[in-house]
Amino acid sequence: MGKRILAILVEDRPGVLTRVSGLFSRRGYNIQNIAVGRTMEPGISRMTVTVDADPLTVEQIVKQLNKQINVLKISDLTDEPSVERELLLVKVKAEPAKRTDIQQMVNTFRGRIVDLSPDSMIIEVTGDDVKLKAFLLMMQEFGIKEIVSTGKVALFRGSKITRESKS
Amino acid sequence: MGKRILAILVEDRPGVLTRVSGLFSRRGYNIQNIAVGRTMEPGISRMTVTVDADPLTVEQIVKQLNKQINVLKISDLTDEPSVERELLLVKVKAEPAKRTDIQQMVNTFRGRIVDLSPDSMIIEVTGDDVKLKAFLLMMQEFGIKEIVSTGKVALFRGSKITRESKS
Repeated sequence: MGKRILAILVEDRPGVLTRVSGLFSRRGYNIQNIAVGRTMEPGISRMTVTVDADPLTVEQIVKQLNKQINVLKISDLTDEPSVERELLLVKVKAEPAKRTDIQQMVNTFRGRIVDLSPDSMIIEVTGDDVKLKAFLLMMQEFGIKEIVSTGKVALFRGSKITRESKS
Repeated sequence: MGKRILAILVEDRPGVLTRVSGLFSRRGYNIQNIAVGRTMEPGISRMTVTVDADPLTVEQIVKQLNKQINVLKISDLTDEPSVERELLLVKVKAEPAKRTDIQQMVNTFRGRIVDLSPDSMIIEVTGDDVKLKAFLLMMQEFGIKEIVSTGKVALFRGSKITRESKS
């Protein structure tokens, strides 16, 4: 077992997400996180799926995905050099006396304060798993009220891209 | 019709994403983007769903979602003050002579260059729809090779949070 990251180009139609996620859940594999967003082609979305499964199972799922009419292309980014990023919004308790300390940690992690109220702040931070976990650990001393994260997205490093044709 | 943003707290189990997305697609509503990621509670994920639908339909979908055993809480963030963010990775053509120009635009948009190869760069930028569209427009003159975006996440501004109990 191990985390696999798949990039899946799909036609942007009702039901595609349901079918794709169904292929994983029918095998009992839980999608740890998924991010579905735009591409430069109108009508085409890109799903980035992180799943904990062995390579053989992932290979079988990829074969099934390739048979789906609305699936245009699947890339496995796990074993190739890639940039992985996730966005995290964290709401922390922030009475005035703590704000300077929080600001300092936010700077260290190259985060940004994106909302401030009399007793709380929202901080935006991006990075990989390790960085985001480290940031959350530091924020715990102030009191985390709520978080939301986007799930991971990834691109191959260098000029290699995920094209819109089935391999 | 109009974009609605829903935050859905769910148990992190196989099949939950399939059921949730199925509730939208069965009505013919396409989820424009979805981000599924961690929360501070082990075993609980947070889905942020952006859907183009009228408020009445969304209300019906929310009722159906509330009946699902693995759905813990749904919040509609559309009409309340909230922070909305999305992360975008953009791979652009970047021969050496263009790098300074690109760097300058990246600074203006408070982005970051996260990968550099002899002929391309990957840029990370975060923001709302309007900012990200403006950034993509500026990058087009250099030649966009590929993009991936996370889909939107959102938190209520101030101290209000989305709790884990059905309303």
